[in-house]
Order: sequence, then structure tokens, then C-alpha cells
Amino acid sequence: MASPEPRRRVLIVGGGFGGLLCAQNLAKAPVDVTLVDRRNFHLFQPLLYQVATGALSPANIAAPLRSILKRQRNVKTLLGEVVGFDGEAKEAILSDGSRLGYDVLVLATGSTHHYFGKDAQWEPLAPGLKTIEDATRIRQKVLSAFEHAEQINDPALRKKLMTFAVVGGGPTGVEMAGSIAELASHTLRRDFRSIDPSSARVVLIENSDRVLQVFPEKLSRKALEALHSLRVETWLNCRVTDVTPESVVVDRQGQREELPTETVIWAAGVKASPLGKLLAEAMGGGEVDRGGRIVTTRDCTVPNHPDVFVIGDLAHYPLADGKTLPGVAPVAMQQGQYVGEAIARRASGLSSKGPFRYRDKGIMATIGRSMAVAQTGKLQLSGWLAWAAWLFVHIMYLAVFENRVLVLFQWFWNYITRNRSARLITWTDGR
Amino acid sequence: MASPEPRRRVLIVGGGFGGLLCAQNLAKAPVDVTLVDRRNFHLFQPLLYQVATGALSPANIAAPLRSILKRQRNVKTLLGEVVGFDGEAKEAILSDGSRLGYDVLVLATGSTHHYFGKDAQWEPLAPGLKTIEDATRIRQKVLSAFEHAEQINDPALRKKLMTFAVVGGGPTGVEMAGSIAELASHTLRRDFRSIDPSSARVVLIENSDRVLQVFPEKLSRKALEALHSLRVETWLNCRVTDVTPESVVVDRQGQREELPTETVIWAAGVKASPLGKLLAEAMGGGEVDRGGRIVTTRDCTVPNHPDVFVIGDLAHYPLADGKTLPGVAPVAMQQGQYVGEAIARRASGLSSKGPFRYRDKGIMATIGRSMAVAQTGKLQLSGWLAWAAWLFVHIMYLAVFENRVLVLFQWFWNYITRNRSARLITWTDGR
Repeated sequence: MASPEPRRRVLIVGGGFGGLLCAQNLAKAPVDVTLVDRRNFHLFQPLLYQVATGALSPANIAAPLRSILKRQRNVKTLLGEVVGFDGEAKEAILSDGSRLGYDVLVLATGSTHHYFGKDAQWEPLAPGLKTIEDATRIRQKVLSAFEHAEQINDPALRKKLMTFAVVGGGPTGVEMAGSIAELASHTLRRDFRSIDPSSARVVLIENSDRVLQVFPEKLSRKALEALHSLRVETWLNCRVTDVTPESVVVDRQGQREELPTETVIWAAGVKASPLGKLLAEAMGGGEVDRGGRIVTTRDCTVPNHPDVFVIGDLAHYPLADGKTLPGVAPVAMQQGQYVGEAIARRASGLSSKGPFRYRDKGIMATIGRSMAVAQTGKLQLSGWLAWAAWLFVHIMYLAVFENRVLVLFQWFWNYITRNRSARLITWTDGR
Repeated sequence: MASPEPRRRVLIVGGGFGGLLCAQNLAKAPVDVTLVDRRNFHLFQPLLYQVATGALSPANIAAPLRSILKRQRNVKTLLGEVVGFDGEAKEAILSDGSRLGYDVLVLATGSTHHYFGKDAQWEPLAPGLKTIEDATRIRQKVLSAFEHAEQINDPALRKKLMTFAVVGGGPTGVEMAGSIAELASHTLRRDFRSIDPSSARVVLIENSDRVLQVFPEKLSRKALEALHSLRVETWLNCRVTDVTPESVVVDRQGQREELPTETVIWAAGVKASPLGKLLAEAMGGGEVDRGGRIVTTRDCTVPNHPDVFVIGDLAHYPLADGKTLPGVAPVAMQQGQYVGEAIARRASGLSSKGPFRYRDKGIMATIGRSMAVAQTGKLQLSGWLAWAAWLFVHIMYLAVFENRVLVLFQWFWNYITRNRSARLITWTDGR
């Protein structure tokens, strides 16, 4: 027998849905995988809003990457931050200066908040919802606002404290607004003596003429009704023009309107991780779209670089009709699986299975307890049935977490008692 | 009928075991209670080490004070920090300058870490274990040390990273050392590729000649054996003389010894909350002991101030034999109950039931899975039986938490799987 070729080194950057699924689909491949992430855990981002409103604990929706991958002996997990690439040497450069060589690179570092060019001014005032720390920061802001309102007598200040603005009417914004409304009118209802939490004002601000734009119009209407039944105000056709420590200012079809509030939550825009641009430069000028995403081929590689894959929110995957795939978890997961299989086939000398094809299984969003909307194929669901479907799908997705049963139990408990036991004001600024 | 006298205003400062029990025992009293705490939750401190080692989430051992007290309509809960007193006006002064008037004051603000006069130098290097943030900071330090060790090749640095020092051989220190050892040799055993976590070195440093000093000698020996079976090194008769970013230095009976480590956990000393001294000054010179605790009368009041009570870790309660009551949870709880009842009796015009009497139900400490020591009266237990007793008592204590069942379930799960699912490296410095 000929001496075997050295095993190819696959470097996966990012342990989100895309990166993790890619690593898992390389389980039986004759390759050496390194998965590097800035964090030591995989985060189930779709449920972050439940942490932000005290229903779940961070550990309920985050699992250590090592723990998930510990039985997969060909994977090495590394905690580290990739800050650049050396395309010539085929190396990723880490923040501590060390380098990781690769034969095959999979970039899956996702996206971050985007404040329409006002990042420096608005980010400190209006946290987004991407990390555990974001979620505990929002939780601290929302709960502290009620605590502060309880202590004062000035009616204008009290009203401002008890006003919560959520910017962006997509799934995250709708879920946040609904959850804050439920927190105020149910969970906290009897907790205070001087204020009535159920009189809190939750305002959802959306640029376009309806919430959940990516859903069929009928479901947008259903979601709007559900929000109104929770007494969430929806400000449609309103573009945010300023965020201050005291208010959020919008342009409502030419009219300037100011909403006094100290709690603004940002669910409006995302941009690609900055690594996209750096990779494109290192590869000698790959195409990057306006959102910072790398334009890929149909097999998820960078053009002319068959060993460099980009997947998930960071990838601009062009469709035949000129559109691109949306930045949602199922796309990242399916791309991760596809790329893992593709690398495995190549390593085993098998031919490619053809370009990536997204199987759209549908979309869903939840507004509150027993209220959700879902669309799959031609089927449109709303209300309790959609909520049950939402619950089922999310529990299935949570399969990577060893403590899935615990989360289910916690949800069940919260559902019955309407309690949110993780209502802790903790500090991330070292206080 | 004569017009009723105005209801007396009872101000409780601190929502720990003492303050909370006091408030709960005033449920039926004709008084208006205000409970003020810097945090919005009651923390079950005896289980903080489980958060620090990733076995439980913060919310598992913390419950919102409002939530606990919401059905007790004569209690108002306030989030705020008391920074002083005006004894003349009978007012507590909050950090925002506002004042809270009282007719009866109960001070129960507990204790904080004590670094033998080296607070400023050692505290940043050797976190103690009093708050949720302390626990997540220790968790971050311990887990990051393993992550860092996985990435480097220098054997000396790797050894230093995988050395963990716990200072103080009391219950907290013993529990921490045992938990870190279990984390390393069981939970993380198969998680890494370059290092063997079970080769980690855990060193417990104790000033005296045995661990668990407050226990009978036989149980100290049993605890020592249990620690050794978990491969914890115990350095007895060692006094810490310095803590640096690179090591901890001890004096072992005249010999200087240096242990290279970047992870030092402080479980050695506590001092009373600084409010004790401030109260004594405001009251015109109450007696304060060396540890900053206020010397109380037999009915838990400040001498000559029958309406000012001091309970829990902040109280120096003198016993007939010249000793004082220890700073443990059962003392705080029983004093809280006693004071609550005393205030209620006075408000209802009933006579006092006599001085406070501590019923010592025993002490217990756990070393690890299925290993504990317990003493109650003349009965001394160790091993599995003591552990079962420990578990039972702690679950009973957790009765104030609505999610007790969840915590039990989580424990049961951890016990079977040896898993610690809350192994998240999160940042408290805003990173």
C-alpha cells in the first residue's frame, strides 16, 4: 500500500448554527477539524429574547461547544478570535498573534447589529440582541426601569421610565415587544406597590407598513392583532432618526415625533461580521455586498477558491431570480450540513453532489403565550396551533443541548405559572 | 372607638436570610414594612459555589424579592443602597440622596470579603464568593484557564494555568476545592485534545491544622480524606502572605513557599458590612467589635435603642460563655424570625417572649458528589448518608424559591450525568 496522504486540515471559524453543523457533518470524514470561536459555547439565538425578559437562564440556551463535540475525536475546539487571514500561507491570524494553518477554510462568523451608520452614538443607548451579555443587559435595563419608577413620584418621569421602545418589526422585534408586554401585565402585575406595571407602554417601531415583512400579509395582520391584544402600540411607517438617553425620535411620513423613554431595544438591522471584508482582501478581492457579506458561488465557496467556504449570515448566496438567501438559522444549518458533506466527499475522493439547494421549510414567529404565526409551503397558521408548532420545532432544534428536557420543563413551568424566575438585575460593568 | 394610632413604619435593610425572614414574620402584624436591598433578588448563598463551577445557573439560586413578597400586602420592596443613617430624625439615607423614615429599624446587611488588610491588592486577583457576579467571574476564570492551557505548548505555563488555589478551609473553601476537582476530572475529562484536565492541580490552603475547624475533629479528618480521594492537595498550617497575578505565596511554619497559579479563589475571611460602623456612629456610639459587627443585646437590639435591631452576620450576639454566635445562615434566619415576631407582638400590644435563643440544629458541609459531613447534636455523619441529609436540608431551605422543583431536577440531572451545563464563559467587564 502507498503511504497515506496527510489528512487535510479543515478550519471552521464560528460555532453558530452553520459552523457547528459543518463540524458535525465531518464526523466520519478523514480530516482534522479545528473549530475556533470567540466564545466557549454555541448559542441558540432564536430564544435570546426569553433571556432578555427573564423567562430562561443563559445556560438554558447555550451549550459548551466542547461538550457538544467531545465525542467527535477528529475535532479540536479552540477559544480564540480570528482577526485576519493570510491567503498566501493559508493561515488564519488570531488576536494573540498566533496562526492557524488550514487546507480548507469554512467561514461562518455571522452578523452583528447595524445602526445605519450611527453605531457609535446609538449602540450604547439601544442594545441589540445577539449575545448573552446583550440579553442580560436588556433584562437589567427593563427590570431597573420598573424599580426606578416605583421609587419616584414625578408622573412624567414615571411615564418615561415605564415606556419601552422596540425598534424593528421583524421576528425578534415582535417577540421582544410581546414578551415585555407579558412581563408587565402578567408576571409583574402584583409585584409593585406604587406603580401598576400593566400600565407600561410598549411601542414597536417599524419602518415599513407592516410587521413581519417576510411573512404573507394575512399573517402580518394576525401578528398585529395579537400585539394589540397584548396592548403593544405599533408605530408603522416610522423611521428612527435619533436615539438619545431620554427618547427615541422618529420620522412618521415627514412628521417628526418623539417618544420619551429610557429603554430602547434595537432589533432593526444587522450587518455581516467584519471578517467577511478581511477574507475578501486576503483572497485578492472577492466580491463583498453592501451589507458586508461575501458573494459566494452556488457551492458556497468564494469564486476561484474552491477550498474556502462562506456560510450563514456572512454569505451572500445568489439565487436565480437575483435575490439572495435570507439570514436565518435554517439557511445557516443547511449550508453547514452541505459544506460538511461536500468536504467529506472530497476527502474520500467522491464527486460533488452538485450545488447547494435550500429547502425552505417555512417561517414562524411567536408573539406571546399561545400566540404565533407560521407559514410552511401554502399552509398558514396562527394562534394556538402555530404556537404549538413553534414550540415543537424549537424543542427539536434544541437537540444539540444535553439539557433539552430541563428547558422544556422550565417552559412548561413558566407557561402554567406565567412566572419568569430569571428576573435578575445583574451587572456587566463590574458594579 | 378611639381613632387608631398610625401604623408603625418598619424599615428592613437587607434582603438576605435575616431580612427576608423578618419581613415574612411580619405578615400579619399591623405595621407598614419597607424592605430595601441593593439587589432585586434574594440569593441562596450556600449554593453559590455551584454557580461558580457551572453546575447551576444564577437564577436557580436567586429569586426576585418582589416575587417572594408579592402576596404580603404590608411590605413594600425597594431597590436601593443605604449609605448612612440619621439617628436623630430616624431616617436611613440612600445613595441617591433620598431618605426613608422609620419607627423601627432592622439592619441585616451581612458581611463581605476580608483580605486581612490587603483588600485593594488581593481582591482583584483573588475573587471571593459572595455575589452572583463573584460566582460568574470565578466560573469565567476557571474555565478560561483550561481553554488557555489547551492552546499553548510551554509546559511550565500550562502547569501554572492548570493549578487552582483555594484559600480558606471552611465549608465554602472545601466545597469550592471539591467542585473544581470534580469539574476537572469528570465533567471536562473528554472535552480537550491537547491537555488532560484530570491532571489539574487543586490546592486548598488553610491557616490552621485542619479543614472545617468548626466541625468535630473526626469529621475534619473524614473531609480531608474525601478531599484527597478527589486528588485535592491540602496545605495545612499555611498562612497566605502574598497574592500576585502569577502565584500565591504562603508561610508554612516559617518557610516561604510559592505556588505558581493564575487562579486564586478567596474563601478565607469575612468582615461585617460597613453599615455597622455607620449605624453605631448615628446612634451615638454603639459598640462595634474588631470585625465591624455591632454588639447587640440579648433581644437583638442596639443597647439603649429598643427600636433598632441588628441581625445576621452584621450582629455580634454575645453568649453567656463569652463567645458569639457564628455568622451562618441558620443564625440569621432564626434571628430574623425572632425579630419579626418581637416587632409584631409589640405592635399588637403583647409583651416580649424573652431574649433570643439560638437552636443549634447542627452543621454540614459537602465535599463532592455523594460526599459530605454533618453533625447534629451528638450525631456525626459522613459519606453518602451525610450527603443525602445535606441535599434534603438544602432543598427544604430552597422553599422560598418558586422554582425549587426545577433546581431539584437540575441537580438530579447533574448527579446522573456528572454534567455541568452552565459552563459559560461570560464577561462582567463589558467585553
